[in-house]
Amino acid sequence: MDVLVSEVGPRDGLQNIDRAMPTGAKHRWVATLAAAGLREVEVASFVSPKRLPQMADAAEVVAEALRIPDLTVLALVPNLIGARNAVAAGARSLTMPVSVSESHSRANIGMSPEQAVEQVVAVAALKAEHPDLHIEVGLSTAFGCTIEGSVPEDRVIELAVHAARAGADSVGLSDTTGYANPAQVRRLFTRLSSELGERAGGAHLHNTRGQGLANVVAALDAGVRTFDSSHAGLGGCPYAPGASGNVVSEDLVFLLESMGLRTGVDLDALIAGRSVISEGLPGEQLYGHVADAGLTKGFRYADEMAEIPA
Amino acid sequence: MDVLVSEVGPRDGLQNIDRAMPTGAKHRWVATLAAAGLREVEVASFVSPKRLPQMADAAEVVAEALRIPDLTVLALVPNLIGARNAVAAGARSLTMPVSVSESHSRANIGMSPEQAVEQVVAVAALKAEHPDLHIEVGLSTAFGCTIEGSVPEDRVIELAVHAARAGADSVGLSDTTGYANPAQVRRLFTRLSSELGERAGGAHLHNTRGQGLANVVAALDAGVRTFDSSHAGLGGCPYAPGASGNVVSEDLVFLLESMGLRTGVDLDALIAGRSVISEGLPGEQLYGHVADAGLTKGFRYADEMAEIPA
Repeated sequence: MDVLVSEVGPRDGLQNIDRAMPTGAKHRWVATLAAAGLREVEVASFVSPKRLPQMADAAEVVAEALRIPDLTVLALVPNLIGARNAVAAGARSLTMPVSVSESHSRANIGMSPEQAVEQVVAVAALKAEHPDLHIEVGLSTAFGCTIEGSVPEDRVIELAVHAARAGADSVGLSDTTGYANPAQVRRLFTRLSSELGERAGGAHLHNTRGQGLANVVAALDAGVRTFDSSHAGLGGCPYAPGASGNVVSEDLVFLLESMGLRTGVDLDALIAGRSVISEGLPGEQLYGHVADAGLTKGFRYADEMAEIPA
Repeated sequence: MDVLVSEVGPRDGLQNIDRAMPTGAKHRWVATLAAAGLREVEVASFVSPKRLPQMADAAEVVAEALRIPDLTVLALVPNLIGARNAVAAGARSLTMPVSVSESHSRANIGMSPEQAVEQVVAVAALKAEHPDLHIEVGLSTAFGCTIEGSVPEDRVIELAVHAARAGADSVGLSDTTGYANPAQVRRLFTRLSSELGERAGGAHLHNTRGQGLANVVAALDAGVRTFDSSHAGLGGCPYAPGASGNVVSEDLVFLLESMGLRTGVDLDALIAGRSVISEGLPGEQLYGHVADAGLTKGFRYADEMAEIPA
């Protein structure tokens, strides 16, 4: 595998939909994703069920997902309480959001960026009891903020360094708002890699302004090899204000495999698996171009390419 | 201006819609595009009105567009007959399609690729009478064909060289079918530039599989500085089979300006100008992400950027 496609639909997708997918349907969806070859799925968010009732079954979803062989089960935790609950459910791979924008951070998790980093310190302390705990930090609004506008690049790198020092095993950058452009993506990930080395994490890109895959190309150039995406683009029409608009997994896998980068994902299975979402959330709008246009005639996966012409 | 955005909506867009836009509406549309800062518009196709009744007013549209100051008015001509008609209407910038795929070439213009190159020779001979004639060739299906599947890259370059020898002032590559991927785009445009030097032309990319802007990023890396696109993505839902699915001009300009590349285009004017299309073709579906999501907070054009951080 050359690139890790980290599926976030069951967490980021469902979190942005007003109704809950039944727990059984979540189980089937995660199993379908794993069967299509995805090796990492962010399955739930451990937050207050009052705030996000769609995630009330997080512990159950994590426990079931952990039964799938060779699957990394990621859980989002905003703070120590969430982390304790996730670990109690069996999760050992946690992802923590730290927003670079002060305004977004307060609006989103009720903490300043520095306070969010303090939560990373507290969660990292759980490693004393659970040495196999893996903590990823995702820096939200790293490319711009709907409240503050542009975000200083030096501040992004500064927070990335703080998060790594706080105990994060990796620190990635998130274009939460669909503000990123390829030049900026290339600059920031290059700096991130030079500051953090092996702790430089992946790219979480949105397609709000149609720039998602363009930014993926730039991130690949900067050496990024982990990308978040959402099956069927679930969780947001890229056209609607406030929508999530994650990069669509099917279109991302098509991009990568066409370029000769192995993902391990079976595109036909991933496309067919969209029906599992529709069964769990009848009538929900699904997104993506490849699912509708179909694979190209004579399409070959990266590992079927005899050679990549120079 | 760092990058030339060549607007193809009035030709490629309208050609793929079953009804005709009234001539007066075409005039208003072209004027609107020019007023938004676009410096080149492909306004019509000189083909048999029996085959494409939408283009029956090509001569009138060209003549009117030529009255707009500082606008390059492009006309598509598939053969010598079309070229003569275009030149008679006053056009001096012609674009000629030559399909790399034998099957596509015969299906599309009833000629083999070599016969299409012979037409370039014949049209180039018109320069004796009209020294200001400029001939662009666009190699269709350069990245793959819905009939033949993959297209040999050596064949693409071979035909590009033939077209240049035939008298084309520039030879560009077209992803007519939405088959291209960024690795392929980078390879082919790099080879094109090394073979043709200053005669290497622009990129005509489609978004059929959502890869349009990703391919733009790769083409930029390979030195391409001319891109075709369609206002409001007119002329095809990227989801429908056989649809054109041109890259959307608004999204392309947003990408380029965000990256610090000056296009000369006013995005607000371009977005507002979508209403002119709707007036000419009531109810027609318009596409694009930026028009719906809006510009980013604090958006700056390339020439407003004080500096591009290193």
